[in-house]
Formats: sequence, structure tokens, C-alpha cells
Amino acid sequence: MNLQGYSVIDCDLHNEVASLATLYPYLPDHWVDYCNESAFTGPDANDYPKNAPITARPGSKPAQGSPGSDLPLLRQQALDSVDWRVETGILNCAYRVASVHNPDLAAALATAVNQWQVEHWLEKEPRLRASIVVPSQTPQRAAQEIERWGDHPGFVQVVLPVRSDAPYGNLRYDPIYAAAAKHDLVIGIHYGGAPGHPSTAVGWAVSYLEEYAGMASVFQSQVMSLIIEGVFDRFPTLRVTLIEGGFTWMPSLMWRIDKEWKGLRHNTPWVKHLPSEYMREHIRLTTQPIDGPTEAGYLRQIIEQMDSEEMLMFASDYPHWQYDRPEEALPVPLEEGVLQKILAENARTFYHL
Amino acid sequence: MNLQGYSVIDCDLHNEVASLATLYPYLPDHWVDYCNESAFTGPDANDYPKNAPITARPGSKPAQGSPGSDLPLLRQQALDSVDWRVETGILNCAYRVASVHNPDLAAALATAVNQWQVEHWLEKEPRLRASIVVPSQTPQRAAQEIERWGDHPGFVQVVLPVRSDAPYGNLRYDPIYAAAAKHDLVIGIHYGGAPGHPSTAVGWAVSYLEEYAGMASVFQSQVMSLIIEGVFDRFPTLRVTLIEGGFTWMPSLMWRIDKEWKGLRHNTPWVKHLPSEYMREHIRLTTQPIDGPTEAGYLRQIIEQMDSEEMLMFASDYPHWQYDRPEEALPVPLEEGVLQKILAENARTFYHL
Repeated sequence: MNLQGYSVIDCDLHNEVASLATLYPYLPDHWVDYCNESAFTGPDANDYPKNAPITARPGSKPAQGSPGSDLPLLRQQALDSVDWRVETGILNCAYRVASVHNPDLAAALATAVNQWQVEHWLEKEPRLRASIVVPSQTPQRAAQEIERWGDHPGFVQVVLPVRSDAPYGNLRYDPIYAAAAKHDLVIGIHYGGAPGHPSTAVGWAVSYLEEYAGMASVFQSQVMSLIIEGVFDRFPTLRVTLIEGGFTWMPSLMWRIDKEWKGLRHNTPWVKHLPSEYMREHIRLTTQPIDGPTEAGYLRQIIEQMDSEEMLMFASDYPHWQYDRPEEALPVPLEEGVLQKILAENARTFYHL
Repeated sequence: MNLQGYSVIDCDLHNEVASLATLYPYLPDHWVDYCNESAFTGPDANDYPKNAPITARPGSKPAQGSPGSDLPLLRQQALDSVDWRVETGILNCAYRVASVHNPDLAAALATAVNQWQVEHWLEKEPRLRASIVVPSQTPQRAAQEIERWGDHPGFVQVVLPVRSDAPYGNLRYDPIYAAAAKHDLVIGIHYGGAPGHPSTAVGWAVSYLEEYAGMASVFQSQVMSLIIEGVFDRFPTLRVTLIEGGFTWMPSLMWRIDKEWKGLRHNTPWVKHLPSEYMREHIRLTTQPIDGPTEAGYLRQIIEQMDSEEMLMFASDYPHWQYDRPEEALPVPLEEGVLQKILAENARTFYHL
């Protein structure tokens, strides 16, 4: 639908570290030497390969560097958008420190990325908020990184890749959640990650189509783990946003887990409420990419089945390319109240903006 | 709803190998000696631990052996059911030969189980059909096993555990599909399995609740793999039934995979149709366990969203315990035509009964 004139909080913008050299000013000499000596080029996953036409929105590549690496261009295309009026944009930097196997280098890279985010993004554009990049494979280091930046008003979130070493409900991650809760930060679980595990529970997929579409299953595993392993009981103020994982699978997961919890809850006595109640209270999902129901009415049914108008939050996923026309960013006609919730109010409440 | 008087094809009954000794008459002497010497008790996963009240339907344990191990009792409770009129019941024996690491022993156990199924179940009860148990971890052996029994009119299916060494679209499994297609057998992918991989794509779950509810995600991975890796293009007559994995997640998966296929199909040029078209043509799902939508209307919405009245097939899952009252086996009032399709017609067509 046409969103012109609407005030929007865009919950998923991607700022990109153009190259490892971008971070050299923020890295200790030792690591600069190490990177040069080893010819390490950084944990970037080549999200925007040259000459690949559909990885990023047309025109989003600046003269120098990859899409999302240039603030003036991002400002012009994503914040000063003519398609809607952006009140706040939340940056999720996908620099993959969680896949660096040297824990000291991973921690140093995270600090460098966050310093770079402060200097080059947050201090230059008041509409932006950002997500703290952390070495989540070493939770105590991740917690230190959160402590380092947690009081900076520009950071509203800690971003974790959905693919992880262990399910995120695992006790080992508690230091991350403790630090996030202390600083009132949302945990943003984002598409991607390369922990070493295969991308499915039955081994490696063979094509990107399978991996991409299959990521929704990984999100489901993480939601179940967070709830069943008691994260929200240990950290009752913690909030989690699921980013770029779709959302039409949510009602089915709610029904299934609620039903089985009734029969098996004696094994997880700390889970005191229906799992779907934890979901509605603690979890939000961004709208891009929409899973593409064949009928507009089906998307409305999904929202109804979730039994909540508060769970969805608008995202453009800039500079990724998920829709051809701005109207497709939210393809369903919605009544005014629900629309405003999805476009801005839900995020304003959830992120305490 | 009340199903009394309705003719039913029950697509999921479990016959149980009471103990390894049950199979000794059908095992070569070498393997009997080996089992005795090594104190191996078989690959049974202890589905029905003694004194655990909710693993099986009350009253389904015979005087000797575990629930499902006694034909007269299964006949009385599942086939001569007073809750509905069973026309045909399809046995899915869950004897876990796919988790036996010695490939020769696994193959010998499969042959023994199938011989036992013929003599003790199929030859004694004409309403029963059965599923060939195969050592799927060694596909050429599995194909030999299918060849051995494929012309027996009692076998209508090859049963595979949903958790596998590799996604089932992988080329390594082609011998299984070739043999099944040759003998006009359905591939039944059933809840469970123990291939060694963790039960989620992000590592081990910590409770049975998490593993059980999470199995739906594993089914999703297998559906994607089968379609995207081209199994139905290589074997255009192959049919697959998904058993005990729920089904309310199906519309979301259809939408997601169709959408992403449109953008990425050039990487998998053998997938010539919309993935959802393959699903509607080649895949069916059994009704137990129902994922438990909170409103009857939501289940009707799911059937509508699948855009097919042919995909669901009734199952009781006897002797497992998925519902307290028979009316809950299919909790939604459905119009006569759809009801008859789900209860019997869809299975009659799909299994060529």
C-alpha cells in the first residue's frame, strides 16, 4: 500500500564496513600488523559481490565502497526517502565478528566496529540508532563490549546472528542478556551467521535458495530455545527482535509450542506461562522480507492468528532488495490503527525511543 | 468432531518390535551371536518407558511387551475402533535401523523387521498395510531392501526418519527413490531419527519439549531439500507423506519458498514449477498431531491457505497419545466433502489403495 506521508521507524538499515582498512584507525597496532602479515581481509561475507545485480537495491552502491558504506547516500535514499517519512532508522551492522575463531581478534574487531559506528554514523546523523556488534561466541567478551557502549544513547540494540554455536537459550549466553537488560538494550537476532554448524538440522543445504528460505526454521529453533530454556524467566525485562526472518510461521509455532508445553511443562518448570504469552510480551518481528502470501487476506489472517497487533515492526532492509516498488514494502491494506502501530508505534514502545 | 460411522484410512499406526529377541528367528546366526556376545539390545529408543503415563494411550500396553507389539490388541483398539470405521490402517514401524552404525547389521535388522511384519501383521490382518523399514544411511542397501519387498501387496510405503545424515534431496538418496518409484511405493518421512547431528541447526536442544516442538522445523528443511535439489524432477511419479510433523506451518513455507524461488531459480534450473505446485502434487501430511490452533476457524484458514483439500490425510497415531477424546482427533467441523477427503479419499488416491 502507499505509505507516503506516514511516519516510520525503520527497524532494519544496514551500514557496511567497506573494508578491513576502514577499521584500522580503531584497532590496536598489534591487530593491524597481524591483519597485514596474514593477509586477513576481515570476516566480511561478500554480501554485495561486484556485478551481481540483485544483491542490493539499484543505485545504492556509492562511487567508492559497497552499498550501505556511505552515510550521505544512505541518508538520501533511506532516511530522506520519498516513499515514507523516516522518524528513526535502526542500523544493524552485519560485520561478522561472531565467525572469527580467534577470540581476541574478534573482540578487537567488535570494539573497532562500534567505535566506527559512533564516529561515522551516530554522531553525524541524529535520526540514526545503532546495534552493538559483539563477539557472541565468547559471551563474557560480548558482555564487556556491551558494558563499553551500553550508556551511549545512540545504541538501542545488541545484534546477534541467528545461526549460532548453540541455541540462544543456552546458559552460556546469560552474560550477554544480563548486560543487555542492565542497559535496557534490545537483543536483535538477525538473518545469517556462520558458526560452523550446517545450515539445517539435517546437514548442509546445497543452494542459496534452500539456505535463504530455510533460515526461517533457524529462527523458530531460537525462539523455542529462548523460551523453553528460560531466558525470559531469568531476565524478565529482556526484549528480542527477530530481523529478516519472516513472520508468517509465527502462529503455527505458537500453537505447536503451547500445545506441547501443556503436556511437557513439568520438565521445564521455570516456564510459568503459555509460551505464546512470552512471545507476545518479549518478541517482535520485522516486516521485511514478507514471506509473500498469495492473497492479501492471508496476511491479515496471520496477524489475527498471532493474536497481537503489537508484534510486527516495519523495516525496509535497506540497501537489500526485497521489493520492487515501495508499495510492496507492506503489501496489505490495513486499517489506520494497525498500520500506525506497525509503521512506528510498536517500535517506539519496544525500543523505548 | 464426532467421527462415528465415518469410513477412515488411518495413515499412522505403530507396530512395535517388543524386543530384539522378536527378530532372532529372522536374523542370520552370525548376527544373533553378535547381539548376544555384545549385549546389544537393539536400536529401540525406549518409546514407551515403563511407568511413564503419557507416552502411550491408556490401556494400549498388552500383558506382555510394549504398546503396539500385540496384533490382537491393536486390532481391537485401532482397527475395530468404536470411534470411527477403519477401512485400512497403515503401519509405520519405528524400529530405528537408520541409527545403527554397522551397515551390515543395520541391513540385516531391516530385513528381519520386514519379514516379521509380513508374517505377524500383514498375513494375519487384511485391513493392514505396512511400511518397509530400510537402512537409509546406506542408500544402496536400502534400495536392495525395497527390491526385496516391493512386489508384496501389503507394503505401500518406505518409511524414513525425518532426522537424517543429509537433507533428503541429496543425490546420495536417489537409489531409494528409484526403487520406491519403480514399485509404486510412497516415501513416508516420519518424526524422529538419531543421525548424530544435533536436533536443531544451531546445536542441541536441552529438553524434549524443545526437541518435540522443534521437529516441525526439520520437516520444513526436508521439504525444501526434496524440491530444491530436484528429487521430484528426477522421479516425477514419487510421492511423499510427512507423518507426525504437524501441518500448520505449510502455508508459510509455500509462500516463502515460492517467493524466493522467483528470485533465485536460475541457480536451480531443474525446478521448473512453483515449489508450492510440487508440494500440492507430490506431498501429503497426516493430521496427528494437530498443532493446536486456538480457534477452530484458524484450522480452516490453514486448509484454505494451502490452496488444496487434497493434502491432509487422517491419522490416529495409535498407540501414541495425542488427544484425550476421539472428537479431538479432528477438532474442526468440516463440510462433508472435505471431511471425506481427509478421512479416506486423499489417502486412497495417494497410496493407490
